[in-house]
Amino acid sequence: MWSEVNNKLYKKFIFRNFSEAFGFMARVALVAEKLDHHPNWSNVYNVVEVFLCTHEAENTVTEKDHQLAKAIDALV
Amino acid sequence: MWSEVNNKLYKKFIFRNFSEAFGFMARVALVAEKLDHHPNWSNVYNVVEVFLCTHEAENTVTEKDHQLAKAIDALV
Amino acid sequence: MWSEVNNKLYKKFIFRNFSEAFGFMARVALVAEKLDHHPNWSNVYNVVEVFLCTHEAENTVTEKDHQLAKAIDALV
Amino acid sequence: MWSEVNNKLYKKFIFRNFSEAFGFMARVALVAEKLDHHPNWSNVYNVVEVFLCTHEAENTVTEKDHQLAKAIDALV
Repeated sequence: MWSEVNNKLYKKFIFRNFSEAFGFMARVALVAEKLDHHPNWSNVYNVVEVFLCTHEAENTVTEKDHQLAKAIDALV
Repeated sequence: MWSEVNNKLYKKFIFRNFSEAFGFMARVALVAEKLDHHPNWSNVYNVVEVFLCTHEAENTVTEKDHQLAKAIDALV
Repeated sequence: MWSEVNNKLYKKFIFRNFSEAFGFMARVALVAEKLDHHPNWSNVYNVVEVFLCTHEAENTVTEKDHQLAKAIDALV
Repeated sequence: MWSEVNNKLYKKFIFRNFSEAFGFMARVALVAEKLDHHPNWSNVYNVVEVFLCTHEAENTVTEKDHQLAKAIDALV
């Protein structure tokens, strides 16, 4: 589940290893570029944390973030 | 199953779309670089074809190819 | 330069090593997904060969292929 | 230049766009997997921030981090 933290949609994804995490990241990159809406995200080994907000809307959560969140969820 | 064609180990992987195929390719790239043994591979949309042989062994199939094939199978 | 071979736009890209080739492939994947037009491409170590044609136009070269070719050239 | 912040080697990389940033990330992923030493890193659009420390050495900076930092610098 995504939670809303400090005006951002947030979700932590946990994988079995770095390879699985990076395969996921490659797919998130594709969908972000396609939607022209990019995440604030970090990775350490098997963990990927994603924060979504909309720069053009003064860094609040907008429909674009919910759309990207949904597209990311469809990958896993 | 991998087959042996023209002195190469060969396998075709079929995915649901380009995103899934490229996520797989990113993971194959990681394992190839880790093993320092790289595939001859091609992609069209959701299909990835992999051919493995060993350049240093006059392009025949060696233990290195079987090792990479096994590592690739472990990804899917 | 791209050449037209067997009803496909074709170009061979040569890099210094697999890492550089795969970094390029990751960027081609992003632009392909963004344009919703995907290459027929292959890689062996430091070499990436790209073939472009349009499936919906009976596998001939169309404006979409020229657009993708131009976007790929902008990456290198 | 890498700086040492809170027991981590730190460097910020700025690119022209997301595509260029992600091409770099794909290459960092390859070298990290090859060295079996992975970064703590984050990305927002064209910016990649990398933090390196060694989990097995109580999250301090070790020779492995300097080696990975050097390998990452060689990519840009």
